[in-house]
Amino acid sequence: MARWQGNTRERLERAALELFREQGYDRTTVAQIAQHAGLTERSFYRWFTDKREVLFAGDELQACLEAGIAKVPAETGALATLMAAFTAVPEVLRPREVLIELRAVIAANPPLRERSLIKEAMLSEVTAAALRRRGHDEQTARLATALGMAILASATRRWVLGEEADFATLLAGSAADLLAVAADLPPVHTETGRAPRK
Amino acid sequence: MARWQGNTRERLERAALELFREQGYDRTTVAQIAQHAGLTERSFYRWFTDKREVLFAGDELQACLEAGIAKVPAETGALATLMAAFTAVPEVLRPREVLIELRAVIAANPPLRERSLIKEAMLSEVTAAALRRRGHDEQTARLATALGMAILASATRRWVLGEEADFATLLAGSAADLLAVAADLPPVHTETGRAPRK
Repeated sequence: MARWQGNTRERLERAALELFREQGYDRTTVAQIAQHAGLTERSFYRWFTDKREVLFAGDELQACLEAGIAKVPAETGALATLMAAFTAVPEVLRPREVLIELRAVIAANPPLRERSLIKEAMLSEVTAAALRRRGHDEQTARLATALGMAILASATRRWVLGEEADFATLLAGSAADLLAVAADLPPVHTETGRAPRK
Repeated sequence: MARWQGNTRERLERAALELFREQGYDRTTVAQIAQHAGLTERSFYRWFTDKREVLFAGDELQACLEAGIAKVPAETGALATLMAAFTAVPEVLRPREVLIELRAVIAANPPLRERSLIKEAMLSEVTAAALRRRGHDEQTARLATALGMAILASATRRWVLGEEADFATLLAGSAADLLAVAADLPPVHTETGRAPRK
């Protein structure tokens, strides 16, 4: 409940979500959202480029992860770097009831779902690039990103579903679940038997 | 080099990729592709709904994974099930030089890249659903899918990059790399300390 809640912005976001729920996303206009929030269209466009961006607001998560990654000491393992960066995510998480509505609007609208998938993929690309800049090889950067994003998505989902735990605990629980799932893979004892890297 | 190579279809695919490379994806028409392959437009549409689908051809990979998963004995772990299903993937992999061109066309065209991301996400959803139908819980199905897809993508990428190893070896090598990356996470000794599941 911090940074993102510029009061104007939050009002616009909540007004938009209310209208999306009541009359549908497609039938809602920017003018209606602004009016419903008691604000002008001009203030809407100060915060969002269009009504879709209310749902995918800004790049706080991306900025949060990039800043978080930059703070981790050099020589930290790739996945450990991401796990450390994830601890700052609660600062940019919307309130639970906003997230629930936001996810419901996206889930009900195929173009919005596609947009959401693309945003996620872009976030993964930016994250993998940040790891590469820290000296991790391509393969490590990609695999750590895949694992990290799976853990983050799981923790966020649990949080949205209402689990009563702080975000760090949810992250740790999801990491433990991921390791339990990964225990299916044959253990690696030595470097032999691995495919050569390119 | 097997099932997918219906001769007509392969000719169309190669003709399309040649034209995409020579004159660009946007400027290439279905009529040109058919002519370049020495076939009629009618035969083109027997195989593909439009020129974009030449690049995302069919659902062989999805069908291959679903069939592969169905063959795995019940009670197999979620990720072990996927790893077993992946061994059949070479049957539906395009020849390396086709894959390289195909990826280059997609990478150069933002709408195609988005389409590709969406296809991948849909494949993950279908895979997670197949695991749930086998009795795995939501969390396990999602995490196993994330890990499995990361391993499959890594093995495929290595294969495209020309590593001289059979696909099973590349899968095993990628799984080993993934475990090495996951070693950053704190080991799980007991069930205590895990967040409660919903």
